[in-house]
Amino acid sequence: METDPVADPPFFQSVSWNREGLVPAIAQDAANGEVLMMAWMNRQALRLTLESSRVHYFSRSRDRIWLKGESSGHIQEVESIHLDCDGDVLLIKVKQVGGACHEGFRSCFFRRVDARGGLVVDGQTVFDVAQVYSP
Amino acid sequence: METDPVADPPFFQSVSWNREGLVPAIAQDAANGEVLMMAWMNRQALRLTLESSRVHYFSRSRDRIWLKGESSGHIQEVESIHLDCDGDVLLIKVKQVGGACHEGFRSCFFRRVDARGGLVVDGQTVFDVAQVYSP
Repeated sequence: METDPVADPPFFQSVSWNREGLVPAIAQDAANGEVLMMAWMNRQALRLTLESSRVHYFSRSRDRIWLKGESSGHIQEVESIHLDCDGDVLLIKVKQVGGACHEGFRSCFFRRVDARGGLVVDGQTVFDVAQVYSP
Repeated sequence: METDPVADPPFFQSVSWNREGLVPAIAQDAANGEVLMMAWMNRQALRLTLESSRVHYFSRSRDRIWLKGESSGHIQEVESIHLDCDGDVLLIKVKQVGGACHEGFRSCFFRRVDARGGLVVDGQTVFDVAQVYSP
């Protein structure tokens, strides 16, 4: 367990990390309120987010910290950070460059449940995936 | 593992439930975009949410499904449901009666991280906790 009480801001004591040492972070567009994505942070990702004012997450599948936008350039600049009443969810208002979703949409929530219980695309792509992620 | 493919809407197949059979659900105020709370749903809570158009969650601490507002009357009426690109987070736009937070605030995210890394209250209470939750 990584602990560095000296370096950690006071509010870290109010964060309820889960058993894996993670907390979910919701990214919301500070300009228009659109919910962009939800991903996970460990203590170090949150610390890096605060220090750099650019959102960093912890990838559970890749088992490492990533700077959002490190491949695409679509970074998220922090406007504000809120903690919920139970201390187990973060809400981060951001200035989103480009699109948050790796599928080319502004928000990862681009699929809406329709009246028949199926999914329909609700949104337009804002960048060309093949161009942004090409090697 | 609870499975009832006949009763489940088609999009359930696109939901990535975690090891505990849960998926996080973000509730957002449909009127003004405010993020109200995040809680968890199991398959049955999501089914009940769809059937009743009132948001139901699964409480991990109480190990049971709860209708949001069952004690307080502060229910959440469903306006729309979105699923994210990875299928592992739901975004539910709601008409929130009263306040979402059991501490009396409209949103559970009523604490903001300040410049010193502390927490400050950012919001006003919309109901009297003692009155709403008194026996």
